[in-house]
Amino acid sequence: MSTSLCIFDTTLRDGTQGEGISLTAEDKVKIALKLDALGVHYIEGGNPGSNSKDIEFFRRIREMNLQAKLTAFGSTRRKNSRCEQDINLKHLTESGARAATLVGKTWDFHVHTALQTTLEENLDMIYESLAFVKQSGMEALFDAEHFFDGYKANPDYALAALAKAKEAGAAWIVLCDTNGGTLPGEIREIVSRVASVIDAPIGIHTHNDCELAVANALAAVTAGARQIQGTINGYGERCGNANLCSIIPTLQLKMGYACVSDEQLKSLTGVARYVSEIANVIMPVNQPYVGNAAFAHKGGIHVSAIMKDSKTYEHIQPHLVGNKQRVLVSELAGQSNILSKAQELGLDVNPEGMKSREVIDRIKELEHQGYQFEGADASLELLLRDAYGDAVQIFSVDSFKITVERNAGQMTSEAVVKVRVAGEQVYTVAEGNGPVNALDNALRKALVQFFPGIRDIHLSDYKVRVLDEKDATAAKVRVLIESTDFKETWSTVGVSSNVIEASWEALVDSIRYALIGMDRDTEIAPTLLQSNGLVNH
Amino acid sequence: MSTSLCIFDTTLRDGTQGEGISLTAEDKVKIALKLDALGVHYIEGGNPGSNSKDIEFFRRIREMNLQAKLTAFGSTRRKNSRCEQDINLKHLTESGARAATLVGKTWDFHVHTALQTTLEENLDMIYESLAFVKQSGMEALFDAEHFFDGYKANPDYALAALAKAKEAGAAWIVLCDTNGGTLPGEIREIVSRVASVIDAPIGIHTHNDCELAVANALAAVTAGARQIQGTINGYGERCGNANLCSIIPTLQLKMGYACVSDEQLKSLTGVARYVSEIANVIMPVNQPYVGNAAFAHKGGIHVSAIMKDSKTYEHIQPHLVGNKQRVLVSELAGQSNILSKAQELGLDVNPEGMKSREVIDRIKELEHQGYQFEGADASLELLLRDAYGDAVQIFSVDSFKITVERNAGQMTSEAVVKVRVAGEQVYTVAEGNGPVNALDNALRKALVQFFPGIRDIHLSDYKVRVLDEKDATAAKVRVLIESTDFKETWSTVGVSSNVIEASWEALVDSIRYALIGMDRDTEIAPTLLQSNGLVNH
Repeated sequence: MSTSLCIFDTTLRDGTQGEGISLTAEDKVKIALKLDALGVHYIEGGNPGSNSKDIEFFRRIREMNLQAKLTAFGSTRRKNSRCEQDINLKHLTESGARAATLVGKTWDFHVHTALQTTLEENLDMIYESLAFVKQSGMEALFDAEHFFDGYKANPDYALAALAKAKEAGAAWIVLCDTNGGTLPGEIREIVSRVASVIDAPIGIHTHNDCELAVANALAAVTAGARQIQGTINGYGERCGNANLCSIIPTLQLKMGYACVSDEQLKSLTGVARYVSEIANVIMPVNQPYVGNAAFAHKGGIHVSAIMKDSKTYEHIQPHLVGNKQRVLVSELAGQSNILSKAQELGLDVNPEGMKSREVIDRIKELEHQGYQFEGADASLELLLRDAYGDAVQIFSVDSFKITVERNAGQMTSEAVVKVRVAGEQVYTVAEGNGPVNALDNALRKALVQFFPGIRDIHLSDYKVRVLDEKDATAAKVRVLIESTDFKETWSTVGVSSNVIEASWEALVDSIRYALIGMDRDTEIAPTLLQSNGLVNH
Repeated sequence: MSTSLCIFDTTLRDGTQGEGISLTAEDKVKIALKLDALGVHYIEGGNPGSNSKDIEFFRRIREMNLQAKLTAFGSTRRKNSRCEQDINLKHLTESGARAATLVGKTWDFHVHTALQTTLEENLDMIYESLAFVKQSGMEALFDAEHFFDGYKANPDYALAALAKAKEAGAAWIVLCDTNGGTLPGEIREIVSRVASVIDAPIGIHTHNDCELAVANALAAVTAGARQIQGTINGYGERCGNANLCSIIPTLQLKMGYACVSDEQLKSLTGVARYVSEIANVIMPVNQPYVGNAAFAHKGGIHVSAIMKDSKTYEHIQPHLVGNKQRVLVSELAGQSNILSKAQELGLDVNPEGMKSREVIDRIKELEHQGYQFEGADASLELLLRDAYGDAVQIFSVDSFKITVERNAGQMTSEAVVKVRVAGEQVYTVAEGNGPVNALDNALRKALVQFFPGIRDIHLSDYKVRVLDEKDATAAKVRVLIESTDFKETWSTVGVSSNVIEASWEALVDSIRYALIGMDRDTEIAPTLLQSNGLVNH
């Protein structure tokens, strides 16, 4: 039997202290349900003493019967006062959470400088606050803030603070590297020392200020820690917290510890991307294990080797964490990547043929203009299908015109499009909340009578990037549009010095891709397409 | 004296294998010059055998007399052939680089599967290729690909491959964790073993697939490695390479090794941001040491403590790596952050006053609507100056109208604006490459007669983010505009369901901020402002 570890997630508390991260109570409920399904053991929901949003979250979530222990966060009581009079501790015990984490000082410098009190009073604050929480019927955890700095400065005092917490009945003593400045060797040594003198289960809470949060958490586990605190995608104050999305698979797939079930581990990539969407933070493509590029191969040698055996350049099987292998198309990759993509699509490819050479030249030329197909699989697929004669021109656009006006504080946006479908010209006008929305609406209005299934498609993300900053607002821009029909998600690209034209290009690609897919699935209007001679295969 | 380490930068080679990273020869020259000034010891410029762009780069850079050793990358010769006939080795020796890194196989599985040759032939390929490069007068380095996997599978063969490289005269034996799957403990153990049996200087090349690249590089150094290979910002294949921006300061500030001079270390943040701009990759705000949020404080407790002593929540002094402390404004932070920002601006703030409470409420309300001031310092400054009566309404906008049309493949964009300046109404029309550029042009046309200094300002970045994906193209969007006058850079924000309106709002803030700054510096039109009663302080 492998040793079981306890995963403590603080995405909803420490995670929200990261720059640019702001979650509503509703967002927090959604994320908590995902975390619960992932199988983490503690979900720290927030600080009910600090704001009404967190009180609202605790009110809503406590009725949902999570498997995980719902945990509220707070500090030890104020100096020279009584717990019964501490408004924050009152909110904590009334939150309805099953457990409470109390952060307290263990570094003498902080007691003097931040708290501005005596070392004795701080020990009393730790003891009394934990005992108070425990008396209210909750499980009490002690977050030993700045423990490693404290231990290095004054080991006796730092250990005395832990002993007080244990004496007060803390279920876990969590050692925090709050500033993120400690190195793995120090972590290993100090955790071992604590484990030898404090008879209580030990947790570890690390930050990423030296890009070592994951390594430090793993070092603590090898030294005896049994609870790991961290966040999804490593969100958190400053450089972030230890990233559970890297820690869980490493512990479980490489170090032989048990954290969650194999099935739950397969949901990891989905959870990571879901949380990044809700938090409205773009996930770095190169994020370990769960990033879109984590198993993406670009170097030509790598691609030709993984086509022989994927173990040659992959440290684990991507599906174990719910991710998948991708082959990137770019100037570095050369022919083998592009042709393997075309083969993946089931196209009739002759690697030596004229057509293959033309396709590669065309892609290189478009990349030179600023297109980026690595992030726009659907546009690339259309390009390949067009080249190998597998696609159809379902509709074409003759012209469009957009007007955006602001007058007396009122904004109006209107689009007119002239579209040709099945030999017929359709002329529509629509309003929208903005120019791209108006265009989208006018285009859908023109097409929906022919393809009713288009109603199920919607745009899920819209990104604009300036390609050549020297030309400011006259610069070329690249628009990436992500669309979904609730079953599949696809991305398309447009490039122009005009943001509307670039958006239009990506919009048309998105709808064309969806219609070709619908045609293949014969879900919509196959008869119409055939009767109009639009299907060529 | 502290031990000196050798820093080997491969941003221009392995870095470009990261998804979304593409550098022109010109980009590479610019980056190489920055790396040289940073003080790295080797600059690996690319693979002259793989593409003409890299040949062009080497042709241009070799005339620039870099301090660092310019290095070219290639593979050992093809199986069953002679080095003299190998076109890639020929390009390598003709590149003009002072050193060459040759990657070769040390894992028996790869010899059989990827190379499809015998173990003997692979050893000959390593020996002959390194000897060939050395004979051409270049320093030869051996990149032992997949060394750690190879050692675990067949230690005798992996060590035999290193011995061959040493025998051929390799100046460095570089151990590569090519798949990024090895853990720090294994790295430490295996590097120690190699150091005890191979009498040659050892290098380490790690990848970040387990989020352990930095920890693994440091573990190798403690076990005896003296060269560290990595990239700026950790760019590289899949999850990236070891991030030199985290490794260099940790080695130098915390572990007592010498890598670059103290002055050079202070350029680290600048180099990291420069490379991210050239590579056109957004730097994660939470990147350790050099990220915009690396020393940014958001939690209320943290902010009140760092105002007492910044050592309370900072592991190093930010200026040592050229970064700086920031205080973030958000709902989590509470009053202390906002007020410290206002004080920073020199405003007359009474923390207990009605006005301070109103400002905080207003910021909370705007954040609720989707504004984000953490990334828009200039908009926040305007808001604070407006609130504390320190700003002036230099101009106002009555109305605008934009038309974008596409007909017969031609795009046209036109904007009309009605602006009020100094009591006068100005009515202008302008064309542009897109709607925002047309608006920008029309607004400048209206203002330039009053404020000629406006000619020096330009927009350097333009970002759009969809805030509520459920509503697709009708969703609210946030526009962030970054502007510069070549001395200073500032960011402004606009939010609306209409991308044009949001852009307009950020555009107006950007120009207003610039005009107020010019007013303060009395560089432009102070007389005009005063004569029109526009200056109220």
